[in-house]
Amino acid sequence: MKTVHLAAGLDSGDTAWLLAATALVLLMTPGLALFYGGMVRTKSVLNMLLMSFVSIALVTVVWLLAGYSLVFGDDAFGGLIGDLGHLGMAHIGPDDVSGTVPTMLFSTFQLTFAIITAALISGAVAHRTKFAAWLVFVPVWALLVYVPVAHWVWGPGGWISGRLGALDFAGGLVVEIASGASGLALALVLGPRIGFRKDAMRPHNLPLVMLGAGLLWFGWLGFNGGSALGANGLAAASLLNTLVAGCTGLLGWLAVEQVRDGHPTTFGAASGAVAGLVAITPACGTVGILGGAVVGLAAGVVCSYAVAWKFRFGYDDSLDVVGVHFVGGVVGTLLIGLFATEAMTGGAEGLFYGGGLGQLGRQAVAVVVVAAYTFGVTFLLGKAIDRLMGFRASAEEEMTGLDQTVHAETAYDHGVLGHGAPHNSPAVTKDRSPSA
Amino acid sequence: MKTVHLAAGLDSGDTAWLLAATALVLLMTPGLALFYGGMVRTKSVLNMLLMSFVSIALVTVVWLLAGYSLVFGDDAFGGLIGDLGHLGMAHIGPDDVSGTVPTMLFSTFQLTFAIITAALISGAVAHRTKFAAWLVFVPVWALLVYVPVAHWVWGPGGWISGRLGALDFAGGLVVEIASGASGLALALVLGPRIGFRKDAMRPHNLPLVMLGAGLLWFGWLGFNGGSALGANGLAAASLLNTLVAGCTGLLGWLAVEQVRDGHPTTFGAASGAVAGLVAITPACGTVGILGGAVVGLAAGVVCSYAVAWKFRFGYDDSLDVVGVHFVGGVVGTLLIGLFATEAMTGGAEGLFYGGGLGQLGRQAVAVVVVAAYTFGVTFLLGKAIDRLMGFRASAEEEMTGLDQTVHAETAYDHGVLGHGAPHNSPAVTKDRSPSA
Amino acid sequence: MKTVHLAAGLDSGDTAWLLAATALVLLMTPGLALFYGGMVRTKSVLNMLLMSFVSIALVTVVWLLAGYSLVFGDDAFGGLIGDLGHLGMAHIGPDDVSGTVPTMLFSTFQLTFAIITAALISGAVAHRTKFAAWLVFVPVWALLVYVPVAHWVWGPGGWISGRLGALDFAGGLVVEIASGASGLALALVLGPRIGFRKDAMRPHNLPLVMLGAGLLWFGWLGFNGGSALGANGLAAASLLNTLVAGCTGLLGWLAVEQVRDGHPTTFGAASGAVAGLVAITPACGTVGILGGAVVGLAAGVVCSYAVAWKFRFGYDDSLDVVGVHFVGGVVGTLLIGLFATEAMTGGAEGLFYGGGLGQLGRQAVAVVVVAAYTFGVTFLLGKAIDRLMGFRASAEEEMTGLDQTVHAETAYDHGVLGHGAPHNSPAVTKDRSPSA
Repeated sequence: MKTVHLAAGLDSGDTAWLLAATALVLLMTPGLALFYGGMVRTKSVLNMLLMSFVSIALVTVVWLLAGYSLVFGDDAFGGLIGDLGHLGMAHIGPDDVSGTVPTMLFSTFQLTFAIITAALISGAVAHRTKFAAWLVFVPVWALLVYVPVAHWVWGPGGWISGRLGALDFAGGLVVEIASGASGLALALVLGPRIGFRKDAMRPHNLPLVMLGAGLLWFGWLGFNGGSALGANGLAAASLLNTLVAGCTGLLGWLAVEQVRDGHPTTFGAASGAVAGLVAITPACGTVGILGGAVVGLAAGVVCSYAVAWKFRFGYDDSLDVVGVHFVGGVVGTLLIGLFATEAMTGGAEGLFYGGGLGQLGRQAVAVVVVAAYTFGVTFLLGKAIDRLMGFRASAEEEMTGLDQTVHAETAYDHGVLGHGAPHNSPAVTKDRSPSA
Repeated sequence: MKTVHLAAGLDSGDTAWLLAATALVLLMTPGLALFYGGMVRTKSVLNMLLMSFVSIALVTVVWLLAGYSLVFGDDAFGGLIGDLGHLGMAHIGPDDVSGTVPTMLFSTFQLTFAIITAALISGAVAHRTKFAAWLVFVPVWALLVYVPVAHWVWGPGGWISGRLGALDFAGGLVVEIASGASGLALALVLGPRIGFRKDAMRPHNLPLVMLGAGLLWFGWLGFNGGSALGANGLAAASLLNTLVAGCTGLLGWLAVEQVRDGHPTTFGAASGAVAGLVAITPACGTVGILGGAVVGLAAGVVCSYAVAWKFRFGYDDSLDVVGVHFVGGVVGTLLIGLFATEAMTGGAEGLFYGGGLGQLGRQAVAVVVVAAYTFGVTFLLGKAIDRLMGFRASAEEEMTGLDQTVHAETAYDHGVLGHGAPHNSPAVTKDRSPSA
Repeated sequence: MKTVHLAAGLDSGDTAWLLAATALVLLMTPGLALFYGGMVRTKSVLNMLLMSFVSIALVTVVWLLAGYSLVFGDDAFGGLIGDLGHLGMAHIGPDDVSGTVPTMLFSTFQLTFAIITAALISGAVAHRTKFAAWLVFVPVWALLVYVPVAHWVWGPGGWISGRLGALDFAGGLVVEIASGASGLALALVLGPRIGFRKDAMRPHNLPLVMLGAGLLWFGWLGFNGGSALGANGLAAASLLNTLVAGCTGLLGWLAVEQVRDGHPTTFGAASGAVAGLVAITPACGTVGILGGAVVGLAAGVVCSYAVAWKFRFGYDDSLDVVGVHFVGGVVGTLLIGLFATEAMTGGAEGLFYGGGLGQLGRQAVAVVVVAAYTFGVTFLLGKAIDRLMGFRASAEEEMTGLDQTVHAETAYDHGVLGHGAPHNSPAVTKDRSPSA
């Protein structure tokens, strides 16, 4: 007979939702790969996809060896880092429970967050990153940057949640600001693409971008809703906020485009939805529906302008990790200081809900510290790797495309038939109609 | 500490399934966008995608402001409409429960149904809709058409379920017939595409269509299985029926193609599966497995003929919203009158299960009323918008494509490399084999 | 009122997870269709997609008519086959329960396994299969091959689990080895493609392959995690193992490519992840995390070599069903004999965990018997169909492509605009930036 693996304290409903949510969050990284992949030029799309896919593998290994323990082990030093008691997932079996779910599941759910945070950074360095350097960067970055920040915010005794009292429900600090600030650092280390600011940089496949956006939104319901760590009212409220903020973000970005540029774009819709989703990530479990709508709208509007900063300041944040994830993360994390409501948080309140300016201050401190730490460490790490092995592909590789030069592949090979159907052929697909 | 948000009456397993099901149904709209997007010409694919994506945002706003209250608030007037007690989701917090799930979750689940119903209509007006008019149409349509019908069928005291006693488990009336009849109305308002009936209208990307069909089928398991509003035997039976009917729909359509046209097509397989899924939507929780199989098969066969009516009668239902969703919805809703079984419904029985002709009559009345109402109001709304601001894009926009003219985008830009690999290059992807 | 359908013994949390997991596994077959579709030439991609989609329909019909009963009915004859008590799902209503979930759900979950196993085989015979023969093959194969093996391994009283005592948690024998050996048999019956070994056989769309791989990985979490048949610690451990093994498989394959070929490929990453997922399928519920990591790594390395055997031995296993699924399935099934741990199995132990060589021997016997049976019966069935109606498309159909010749369709028709944007147009999509 099988062992039953039904530990005391486990709730099968909470576990069911977290199992599903973990699958949803894992899907976000392939979704991100497609989202990014559609935005780049045909000659480097496979490299873009692969940077995300290898992040899944590299971060998983680091997480199980040390990351989980350093984040969720008992606090080892002043709220800064966890202990080594669970290196290699030691002492954690299928019957162990965290809260009402298996500890292994809790760990896996958290792991999927670390994965996508690393993958997000790749958007800032599209088209020009040496693949071998990326393979070195990701695991070291996960250990030096993601792991400490995650402990500060979500670990037992972490100083940001414990002592400072800043709120970050699903990863505004840990995921969005960390990836955005790190992306900026790496973009500065690598320098701009050849042809930056040129029209030639436009997306090669926008339907692929929209597919990626759809999968991201889908997965984000697990990301935010799952962060309630159970199937309950808080999960429901977080899920609803996630939907709402994506919507208002989409509308906000389109409105700006209409007014500013005279035409709303599909790319803008996808970008706005993602901006709204980014901003609601820290806030989905702390604000009400109105708050969620405002957070998303603000992010859609602000980010639609922020993505132009790279042209003004000259950093090539190629796929707008800074403009969307950093800026959106800051917007959402700060707005908690205005919209946090006791009905959701069980205590903390924002300025508009009677809590004064205190929460806003706490949020601001957390933003500044996390941004500074993640930017700084990533910049130093990037410089170190650059000195060690070079972080940037050669100009020839970049011009020819990384797919051919690094991976010996080409994304598309339609042959003769791919260039449209043979138009004179009698037997081609028609509008779905009978021959008659 | 966080508040626990575990209200009395909440079942964590039911909640877990409905959280997952809500994510599944939300994914259906991006899936539909790709399904539709693959069917249109390259020059307007982004516009097609965007019509679905903006529907997510517009319907969400309308739903939270007023839709939820008007559908699920206490009946305000003879089973016709709900009251205004929950405008803006007033009086609904994370601890409120509907049945065994959080009310916020119930509302969000229902919202995803409203979203896809609006998005479905866009298939009838592909290639030629003024985007600004669509932005006006969707929210007004949601309020004037979707909301009342949803109250009639699923609202407390709604006259179709309450007084008439017609059955619609997951939206044959509310989703399929409403979208199909509205699509017909709008197709008539707008008139046919330039080049309607021409070969030039064939799908630009059938793998995209199949991807969309796959995502739709996947999401439909949440759509129908989630409509049990819990993780129980009824959900299981609905899920199984949903799989079965998709399968028999697929086989039915392919069989017709083989006999009629001499070749079964992938497009036919996707269309048949969707037709079967449409038809089982009202019936999945009211018929047994055999009934489910017959419902799907009937829809696959009937719809494979119905999609040709547009050519005979001259309405340009471009992507077959009428032929598949309206006709499939009618087939499924009526067949409940034959196949409803007490084992599923807990009471009502169809003709073949000892219930006489009564249920069939009730189903027919509901079909006629819902079809007439949704067609009529949508037609008038379409005409009003057309008069107000014009509903149809200019001929030049239509010919050049809406992507460039309205959104200033083009879907694909492969550059030089996109036209197949450089065939004389030594470094191209091979069949997955080692160099040796 | 509705009946409640809450039978005694049902656990709503377990049911919630299995509902979600069933949806996840169903999505794997469309995911596989895209994975395979991206690998073939443009001229036959629709045929490839359709072979998977019709498998969903054909296997579903066979399963409900007879398959479920023959697999999960009471053992009828020496552990070899189930009885006929549930033909047509007789005596199974929405209130019946298996374990802690509705029997209908258990049956549907198991059905999705049968579906993808059949679909997997199509990868071995890409580009050259007569579609009508495939329609005959799939249902007969499901009955003669899948159904008995599934009963041996998972059926009540099945001889492999019951008497032999071999372990197969989620389908290493039933799904991977069965599909792989059957693929080899069919590849031999059909003979190689015209142009086998030629460069011209390279994948036409690698982003589509990566999309398919992402969906497969996502669905696999339901496949393996769902095989615990409940939301518990065993499900969590299986899910984590599934993630880990996909990762180490990916890394292993890339490492081999780097050393052997000098360049890691995206196609290799996708293949390695799938190889790891294949291998962990039987083992995810029987080994610990370290075991899971080793199983995935071993599969990634071994399969990266095994895919070349077809060139050495001359069988055209076009999309590597043998090299990945058969070989990966064997690797995973055998390694259980080394890594099985009592903490997961509740009893059986592998060589490295104090269990001696006994379990390895049992695994080896099961591998040999299942491989021989599935290869043999499939070979005979293939030959019979070939004699009866021909199993191979004509050379002309193969050269022109099956899409046009058999299905009267072409996958892509971008028209003029599809060949890249009109580069001299002022109104083209730019990098996501404001006009200013």
